[in-house]
Parts: sequence; C-alpha cells; structure tokens
Amino acid sequence: MTQPEKQPRAENAITYETSGVDTQQAETAISAITKAVRQTFDFAAPGGRPVLDLGYFANVLDLDGSLGLAISTDSAGTKVLIAQRVGRYDTIGIDCVAMNVNDLLCVGARPTSLVDYVAVEQLDNGIMQQIIQGLHEAARQSHISIPGGEIAQMADCIRGEAPGSGMDLVGTAVGLVALDQIIVGDGINEGDVLIGMSSSGLHSNGYTLARKVFFDHLGWEVDREVSELGETLGEALLRPTRIYVDPVLEMLKSDVSIKSLAHITGDGLLNLLRTRQKVGFQVHTLPKPPAIFSVLQRGGGISDAEMYRVFNMGIGFCVLVAPEGVDSILATAEEHGVDSWVLGHATLAEEHVGHVQLLPLGLSGDGSSGTFSPE
Amino acid sequence: MTQPEKQPRAENAITYETSGVDTQQAETAISAITKAVRQTFDFAAPGGRPVLDLGYFANVLDLDGSLGLAISTDSAGTKVLIAQRVGRYDTIGIDCVAMNVNDLLCVGARPTSLVDYVAVEQLDNGIMQQIIQGLHEAARQSHISIPGGEIAQMADCIRGEAPGSGMDLVGTAVGLVALDQIIVGDGINEGDVLIGMSSSGLHSNGYTLARKVFFDHLGWEVDREVSELGETLGEALLRPTRIYVDPVLEMLKSDVSIKSLAHITGDGLLNLLRTRQKVGFQVHTLPKPPAIFSVLQRGGGISDAEMYRVFNMGIGFCVLVAPEGVDSILATAEEHGVDSWVLGHATLAEEHVGHVQLLPLGLSGDGSSGTFSPE
Repeated sequence: MTQPEKQPRAENAITYETSGVDTQQAETAISAITKAVRQTFDFAAPGGRPVLDLGYFANVLDLDGSLGLAISTDSAGTKVLIAQRVGRYDTIGIDCVAMNVNDLLCVGARPTSLVDYVAVEQLDNGIMQQIIQGLHEAARQSHISIPGGEIAQMADCIRGEAPGSGMDLVGTAVGLVALDQIIVGDGINEGDVLIGMSSSGLHSNGYTLARKVFFDHLGWEVDREVSELGETLGEALLRPTRIYVDPVLEMLKSDVSIKSLAHITGDGLLNLLRTRQKVGFQVHTLPKPPAIFSVLQRGGGISDAEMYRVFNMGIGFCVLVAPEGVDSILATAEEHGVDSWVLGHATLAEEHVGHVQLLPLGLSGDGSSGTFSPE
Repeated sequence: MTQPEKQPRAENAITYETSGVDTQQAETAISAITKAVRQTFDFAAPGGRPVLDLGYFANVLDLDGSLGLAISTDSAGTKVLIAQRVGRYDTIGIDCVAMNVNDLLCVGARPTSLVDYVAVEQLDNGIMQQIIQGLHEAARQSHISIPGGEIAQMADCIRGEAPGSGMDLVGTAVGLVALDQIIVGDGINEGDVLIGMSSSGLHSNGYTLARKVFFDHLGWEVDREVSELGETLGEALLRPTRIYVDPVLEMLKSDVSIKSLAHITGDGLLNLLRTRQKVGFQVHTLPKPPAIFSVLQRGGGISDAEMYRVFNMGIGFCVLVAPEGVDSILATAEEHGVDSWVLGHATLAEEHVGHVQLLPLGLSGDGSSGTFSPE
C-alpha cells in the first residue's frame, strides 16, 4: 500500500505499514463489516440494545431503561512477544486489563469485571501463573472481579518468539454507567480544555513497529542496558500499561463538567476525534515523551508524524473539560501520582473540525485519513 | 503424561493427549490459578460481585441485588483450521457465538449481546466479511446484538494451515437472569430425568483429535466424499454448532421445574457433573451419534471411553427436570426441530455421586479424573 508522502523521510525509514500492521487495509475491512454488525442491534432481546454506534471506545447496553452496561474487548497485542523475549510474564496481564478498563472509563463507566481468554501454543503452568498474577494485580488496581476465563491450547493456531512459547491474551471488560450519564463527546464548546495524563511508556500499542526497529533493524537484545533509558530495553518495553481507573472515577464523581474522555491507543491523539460531536483540537503543549520514544524514533529514523500516529508519546489518557474544571482535574491526577498537562483546547471552527493540530511540531492530524502531516 | 489405562486399546490408537491437547496438564494449571482468580471476587466494585464459583458454564454478576449479568467467554477453537482447509469462513462465526450463548443458557440466562475478538495473521477483507456473516447469522438466531469487537493483526502471534491464513475467533457473551432464578444444579432429587438434545455434529470441541485422525493418520483431504457421511469430510467437520437459545428459553419460560442445564462440550457428558449439588447420572439410553463420529472413531481406532470423553457424541445440550416435566421438554425440543431423548436419570446414591454411568457401553465416567473407564 502506498500513501501520499507529504514529508521527506529518511531512506529506509520504518513505518507502521512496512512493519506489518496495515491500518488502511484494516479500515477498509472495518467499514465493510460495520454495516452487518450494526444490523445486529435490531436483533437484541431486551437488555441488549446498544445505545452507542460502533467505533467508540466501548459500547453501552440499555439494561433496563436506566442502567447501562458498558462493554469492551481487547488484547495485550504483540506485547506478549516482548514478555516471551524477556521471559517474564507477570505484567502482561496488567496490559490486558488496562486496555479494557481504560476503554470503559471513556464512556463514563465504572469497570466491574473482566473475563480473560488465554490462547497458548503449549500450556506452561509457571507461565500461566505469572499471567494470572498480572491479571490479579490489575483487577486489584481496577476494583474489578474476574468471574471466569478460558485457557485454550491451540498449538496449530498460536505462535511466538520460540517454538512452544506462543500466546494471545484477550480480555472483555464490563462496567456500569447510568444511561443519562454516558459520556460520548457531546456538548463540547469552543475553548473546552484538553488535559493529558501521562502514560507509563508504550502501553500496549505500536509494538509491531517497535519490535521491527529494535530487534530487526537495530538488532538489539532485550537485556541490552540503554543508558538513556536507565534500564534494559526489555524492562522499558515491558512496562505495564497505566490503569486510569482511580483518578478518572474520582474526576467523574466530582462536579466538573467532563465533555469527553479518550484512551490514547493506536492512532495516538487522533483518538480524540471519536467524539459524537464533530470537533477539532488545537494542541499547543506536548510533554516530553519518556525516553523509550526518542530511542525508538532515532533508532528507526521515524518521522514525528509517524510517531504521533502510532504511539501515545507520553500521553495515555485525555480528559476534555470546561475551563473552570481544569484545576480540579489537574489536582485529582496529581493526588493519584499521575503527571498531567493542559495540552490545548477543543475548537468548533469549521476549518479545524476533524483535525488534531500539534502546533509545537507543525503537524495536523486528519481523522478521516488517520495520518499526521505538516501543515 | 501417562494415565492409568484400564482398557485395552488398539496399538497406535490416538487419544486427546497424544494429539496435542493435554487436559490433565490443563487441569493442574487451572486449579493453581483458581485461587488467585477467586481472590478478585473481593476486589469487585458494586455490580461486579460474582455469585457463582469459578468453573460453571458461565458466571453471574450481581448487578443490583436482584438482576444478574451472566457472562462467558470462549472461542471457536481449532475448528478455524477446518475453515482454512475448506476455504469457507461463513459458518465459523456461528460456532463462536454458539459456544458462548449455549453456556449462558446453562445458568438460566437470556443472552443479550456478544463482543467478538478476531486475531488474524494477515487481514483479508473477503474472509473477514465471511466471518462477520456467520456472527450476524448467529446473532439473529440467538436474538443478541454485537455492540462491538476487535480485529487484531498479529502476524507473529497467529498461525494457520497455510502462511498468512491464521486466525483465532473469540467471543464474550453477556445475558440477563434474575438472581433468584439462576439455575446451577440445586434441588436435584433422586430420579430427576436427564433429557438430551441432538447436536449438529462435532460442534466446536475435539478438533485437535479429529484433525489428527483425518489429516495426519488417515491422510484424507477435506474435499473427500465420504459415502457414510453423505457429504464431504470438510462439510461434515464444518457443520456449525447448534444454537439452543430458542428451545431452551421456551423451556425456561414454561412451568417445568428445570434442575440443571448443561452445554455438552469438551469432556462430553462429564459436563453434567458441574452441578453445585453433588449428584451422579445413570444413562440408560444413548442416541446413535451422527455418522461423523463413527467414521472418526473407526479411522482413529479410538475407544468408546475416549470418544465419549472428548466429543458430544450426538448430544449437544442436556436438561435435567423433575419427571412430570419430561413430556413438556420433549415437546418443546420437537417444536424447534431438535431431536431429543430421555437419556436416564440423576441419582443421589453415594456410590454413584460424581459419576456418569453410560450403561449401554458399560462405562463409568469419573468427574474427578475426567475419564471414562469400564465398570
């Protein structure tokens, strides 16, 4: 697949497409199947009617006319391959839970439970117990139960870094939200303030590109001590996804008018554009990303545009609030030990709607193409 | 792993263990992790407290003191490899949905929704649309919505029959049940009657063994016409898992006193022993299994004990009722075009508790070892 290249890029630069995840191809398939999936909304027995459209961070089922059940499914992705390289599996369960509960928060829901599905190439009791240890720790941090799960041994369907080591770690989380309190990005006013909360590192996105750069391109090993990181490459790459349940639930309980909440995953800050109301964002401040991002960017000769498209770049979760709520949100984040920043503001100006401008970098992200390019 | 062999077995006979799914090893891991997972029950925020223990067909979350949310997760398993061999993907989604909604029915819940997670080695739009077609059809049959899903491209984690063809198809279903109407196998009396409903074939269990027999041992191709089957091998193996939602919901609505419901998956009729109340079962009638089972058994030189441990053997779902309810249950199954049989009865006799006796075969299944052996 070729994409218009508006920005000169280093020869041999590595992009997400060349590293094996074809997001444009994915978009095409998603759009084609969306129609069929949306038809199932009409099949639902009482209690199963979705109140949101497809494509938001989570959907919400109308349980009884007043209570909503938020639901989301996601996996730890190819980060499991890092766990396999390092030989350490006690944090990957945190990633699996975090990816799901952070999504639930975005509709204003309080996560309550998660079921896990672990597909393995071969069953290893020790590894499985480490995985459960991570799920357990994340359940504790997220105040959720794990009411059940499934371990599937599928040697012919799963593979990994070494023969027998393959796995896929999937979770589905549910939570509760009053139907009249669902947050979906409505009622946004010009000048509403965008606040970003710090990520712990790569979280669980962009690992296909990161692995390509570090392992294939640079030929580094996970036990390499990288002075800029202050830890080994494996430790930096394995750092678990931050769980935002505690600070965000406190924000939701406050009297701050929260307009939207966004879990920053693949597509980076373009996730902000999922709001039901069509808006744009002008970002005037970007925090300095953790060192892993600069090491990766330099190592792969990757453009800023590509980095901000694929990675969270230090911002794991965003909150959009009316200006009078800013101090409260920043204080709540700080109370929970999470760095946070005023990144910019929402705009309703027609020429900016559907775009995320990263002013310090001179880049504009386009929600429809899913790319950043120079302004 | 070796197991005590009480029954002479053909030389080179293929069992589930030698075919790559080590259920005993799986049991050990499951028991070790059960403790950690059960601890998360105490982490749950209000609405997330599981009311059942781990290991039943589905768990139920106490949403508000009166309404329960049933939840279950499972995949189509290695049946996806059959779809790959045949090159037909429009039914595998039915298997994914069926495995989950049939589990929800077992606690007396009405399924409402399912989220799907499709991990692929490479994204193929045509294949993806076929998969969604199956999910769509199963959602229609099950009266559920699909409020969302995830497509994960993970070339280095997933593999299949041919390079690029790999996939894993996972679902998580939720449903509703009043907390005071959960069915979990309590109040069973001596002589309660066990009714079996017909399966459509292998459903979604035992494919690791079936593939070993047909492809590795016999060297058959999926397009082989097998006269005994009246269709090709691929067609027989791909036959989608029966969805029992309509007949079972009607049984639940009737005034019949249903004691337990069991989705017959891996472990066959031993699934009956999951009841909370400890009971035994005496099966005096076994239906003639569909031809695919006899072709498979003969082809692999597999014992009856092994066949009844790994496969549903023609019985996909069981209902345990008080004797006066039998006629109603049989009639409801028939109205929905599902063959059904009185298989036997429950017993509380101490020497039989924890066992499923298959009297026509002289076999007794032991819930703790998970095996059948001659009496």
